[in-house]
Amino acid sequence: MSTASTDTTSAPGPLFDRVAIIGIGLIGSSLARALAEYGIARQVVCADRSAEACAKALELGIVAEASTDPATALAGADLVILSTPVGSYAAVAEAIGPLLKRGTIVTDVGSVKQAALRDIGPHLPDGVHLIPGHPVAGTEHSGPEAGFATLFQGRWCILTPPTGSDRHALERVTELWRRVGSTVEIMEASHHDRVLAITSHLPHLIAYTIVGTASDLEEDTKSEVIKFSAGGFRDFTRIAASDPVMWRDVFLNNREAVLEILQRFTEDLTALQRAIRWGEGQQLQDHFTKTRAVRRGIIDAKQA
Amino acid sequence: MSTASTDTTSAPGPLFDRVAIIGIGLIGSSLARALAEYGIARQVVCADRSAEACAKALELGIVAEASTDPATALAGADLVILSTPVGSYAAVAEAIGPLLKRGTIVTDVGSVKQAALRDIGPHLPDGVHLIPGHPVAGTEHSGPEAGFATLFQGRWCILTPPTGSDRHALERVTELWRRVGSTVEIMEASHHDRVLAITSHLPHLIAYTIVGTASDLEEDTKSEVIKFSAGGFRDFTRIAASDPVMWRDVFLNNREAVLEILQRFTEDLTALQRAIRWGEGQQLQDHFTKTRAVRRGIIDAKQA
Repeated sequence: MSTASTDTTSAPGPLFDRVAIIGIGLIGSSLARALAEYGIARQVVCADRSAEACAKALELGIVAEASTDPATALAGADLVILSTPVGSYAAVAEAIGPLLKRGTIVTDVGSVKQAALRDIGPHLPDGVHLIPGHPVAGTEHSGPEAGFATLFQGRWCILTPPTGSDRHALERVTELWRRVGSTVEIMEASHHDRVLAITSHLPHLIAYTIVGTASDLEEDTKSEVIKFSAGGFRDFTRIAASDPVMWRDVFLNNREAVLEILQRFTEDLTALQRAIRWGEGQQLQDHFTKTRAVRRGIIDAKQA
Repeated sequence: MSTASTDTTSAPGPLFDRVAIIGIGLIGSSLARALAEYGIARQVVCADRSAEACAKALELGIVAEASTDPATALAGADLVILSTPVGSYAAVAEAIGPLLKRGTIVTDVGSVKQAALRDIGPHLPDGVHLIPGHPVAGTEHSGPEAGFATLFQGRWCILTPPTGSDRHALERVTELWRRVGSTVEIMEASHHDRVLAITSHLPHLIAYTIVGTASDLEEDTKSEVIKFSAGGFRDFTRIAASDPVMWRDVFLNNREAVLEILQRFTEDLTALQRAIRWGEGQQLQDHFTKTRAVRRGIIDAKQA
């Protein structure tokens, strides 16, 4: 068996013997590539309910085994990574829970963390360690062919271990994310869901909305919308091209935080709308000047 | 004197003798560079009410002369380009109108075109040709040092000549934009303002709003908003870092079209909000699937 280590001196050994990735989409397949390429796992296998995705993963050579039956992938795995849409967690956890051996670590990569604790936790037997995680990284593309090993480099990974988590399991998952190039932050699941509601979930909802509004305009104008999209619109379309099922599940599973931040947004938008209607130029200029500073902060934080 | 030509065979001669650029910001300075580098004008001079901007433009070597007095720049110019915020057009046109010699062409680069016709037109003497224009290009940076000659390459430039415009003047302005690398589209000013309200003005308003909402959160969460901005938020901050005065003037001068499209957006957002609140997953998924297709259209149109 491998020995877990947080030692990052040259050529550290594998952290895990066999990693089972459930769901081989953008994030799952990026992790599969990174775990193999950086020598973090001796073997990476996957399960996916889509036989086509399994075949593609094998064809790409990014997993040693692929199966539509999670039981096959789980056999002998010391780390299981859920990378399916958040809405599937309860069903997946219920199916795999009884098959997990004592000492196995279970983690996930979902964008909502209270739901991960709520839906996965109750299905895991004693001695199996749940360390939920969320790599703040991604692209608008989906599927096993969209992944790449460097996706997580220079990005944050947030872990939300429940109270009383196994320290050693937390260290191993932390080390995994460090080795794929991320900086790890540990926080409460509820705090994560509130912060990500503003930094990620609301921006996606807004982008999906505005692109929908544009596409509802009559056929003639629609082609002009695409033609002249360089004026700002195209930045929204990239975000609004993200995986529909993944995002459906994010909104359904972080409902309270999203609705609360959406309410603040609507109030602020209404205030700007009123300033436009009444010609209050100074208010508009003051607001736009303030938002410039936020951009500077992001550039300084090297997240631009 | 140069002769105007729409001939695009190798090494065409200059289209203009002396071009006066009023306002040497991002767009003005990009044009100054392009007009000189591509041999479109024999001489490029500028006026800017900021002495600092004038000094910077001279220091950068992108204009032959720079003055805070428009009259100096206009002397002998056969093309005048307004690249100041749209809200300044009436005052600038009133100041320069009496100084313009017969046959001069006046154009602009503003994002609102009905206002350009309304505010510039009445101040121009007979025999001076107004051909309003809008290059659909830009970055979030401002000032003469932010410009670059290739900004307009592969982008659209929309011209909105008023009824009865001089055909020869329109041809020369069209040719100018072609030579800096743009594709020219001619349309009615009112149609331009409606299309750009959705492709550019609303996206900017939304981005300004969401970045403001985030920055209003308490100090602690604000730094986390910046930290985890890679989840979608950072794309909005880039747009919301655009020039505050320019955008104030866009919203004040395209009020009706912006408010109308904003109303549609708010209705659509409310519908999605309701779907989240009531857990209507299929409606969310259908919406998100539809918006993906719009992105594909933009990629196909090579505007991504």
